[in-house]
Amino acid sequence: MISLLLCICILRCWIWLAASDTGMKRFAAVISYDGTDFFGFQQQPGIRTIQGAFEEAIERIHKFRIPSQGAGRTDTGVHAYGQVIAFDSTLDHLDCNTMRDALNANLPQDVYVRRVHSVADNFSPRFAAKKRIYHYYISKSREPDLFRRRYVWWFPYQLDLAAMRKGAESLLGEHDFSTFRTGRDDRNPIRSISAIRILNYPSGILLIRVEGVSFLKRMVRNIVGLLVKVGTGTIEAETVRELLQSQNRSNLPGTAPPQGLFFYKVLFDEFET
Amino acid sequence: MISLLLCICILRCWIWLAASDTGMKRFAAVISYDGTDFFGFQQQPGIRTIQGAFEEAIERIHKFRIPSQGAGRTDTGVHAYGQVIAFDSTLDHLDCNTMRDALNANLPQDVYVRRVHSVADNFSPRFAAKKRIYHYYISKSREPDLFRRRYVWWFPYQLDLAAMRKGAESLLGEHDFSTFRTGRDDRNPIRSISAIRILNYPSGILLIRVEGVSFLKRMVRNIVGLLVKVGTGTIEAETVRELLQSQNRSNLPGTAPPQGLFFYKVLFDEFET
Repeated sequence: MISLLLCICILRCWIWLAASDTGMKRFAAVISYDGTDFFGFQQQPGIRTIQGAFEEAIERIHKFRIPSQGAGRTDTGVHAYGQVIAFDSTLDHLDCNTMRDALNANLPQDVYVRRVHSVADNFSPRFAAKKRIYHYYISKSREPDLFRRRYVWWFPYQLDLAAMRKGAESLLGEHDFSTFRTGRDDRNPIRSISAIRILNYPSGILLIRVEGVSFLKRMVRNIVGLLVKVGTGTIEAETVRELLQSQNRSNLPGTAPPQGLFFYKVLFDEFET
Repeated sequence: MISLLLCICILRCWIWLAASDTGMKRFAAVISYDGTDFFGFQQQPGIRTIQGAFEEAIERIHKFRIPSQGAGRTDTGVHAYGQVIAFDSTLDHLDCNTMRDALNANLPQDVYVRRVHSVADNFSPRFAAKKRIYHYYISKSREPDLFRRRYVWWFPYQLDLAAMRKGAESLLGEHDFSTFRTGRDDRNPIRSISAIRILNYPSGILLIRVEGVSFLKRMVRNIVGLLVKVGTGTIEAETVRELLQSQNRSNLPGTAPPQGLFFYKVLFDEFET
């Protein structure tokens, strides 16, 4: 009887020690998602969001809720190919591939974890990002392509790419981008765009690729909306600089629709997506 | 007063004559659709089907319900690029392009009318079809492509195309295809396949194209399911002939999932889609 009690006691001590030995491990997941059926990235109670779906998957794996942080917010209908989302896990014995598979097994079919990295305890995808790259896809096909409708802006009109590229040049470098900000965004409007590339694919797809460190709310879609107006000749390429300098959103022609936009890539010192 | 009554009388006569002069005009619409969110093609009360959505669009244009006929039924989740659906219209003054635009204005965003043809009064897309072509798309990419998940079967394993092509040869020509029929289908099981092509695209997409006059229920998906098993080496290419001759569905390995299948094209004497 005494030996049984001793056994139980030793076992309990061992479990307690094993548990107290369990440290934390910070993971950063590189995820892609189809934003069509989500109300944007940011977690909101009672609403289907990317972060919400991701935190539910973490909860199912860990049996309790753990907060997460993304590299950038995306709006309703906007997609991601290389978003990054970081969280602290108590399951420090799991390697990155096992965590990736566990997440994918618990995520809905419109979110997919491409890779998982083990990162420093203080890693912040929001503040550590050295560069963010967005892709905007425009379909110029004569007929709308039903099977791409969720992932492109169908715009079957003539676009003057030379004028668009000339207009885009005015946006390069550091500026006050208040003109290109929509909605509530109280952050510093000074941003820096390092590259805008406009590529014409033989498949009838036009890609507008925008690179910078960080962006204001709807900034990329407002830039695309303006460049398309330059492409149709409604606005002169030279006017882009004036609009930028006006720092007045109401001078802009319109925002490009969300479904063409992909949060494509984030570059960190540690890895890129 | 008399002249006013005379005027009204003449006007009424003219309206009556104009109305009685209105004949019927038969239209055949070439439509593409994303089958993901439909419960198949065939009209069923209270369920979202392609034919149901199409007849609702006709009803909104004509103000009354008109029956329609398709060139082939597709299952839940199966898509079409060149389905054909015919109906009799009382709006015989409408030209084909106007009818196309009217239909597209009244259809949901996952159905699109590519063209409208004016056809003979007795044109039946079901019986007049000279050839039907189905495309089945398999994605062999290492990672699942989130943005194609509704339109391909993701199958990231090695496939022996030579064996698949050899297996497919046994299915060419006229045979009793009972082995490849699923569900209730009381029609004559003798069918004829004129071509099966297996094409490997550099993008990692494998296309299996099947051509014939008409097909049994799930016949194409059952053929694809078997050929993939031949491709993985689970079933010998020589066994395909034995399975065909067995006329026994239960010998088949499995049906390929619906989302990779497109009803691609229909050929008539009058036009092709």
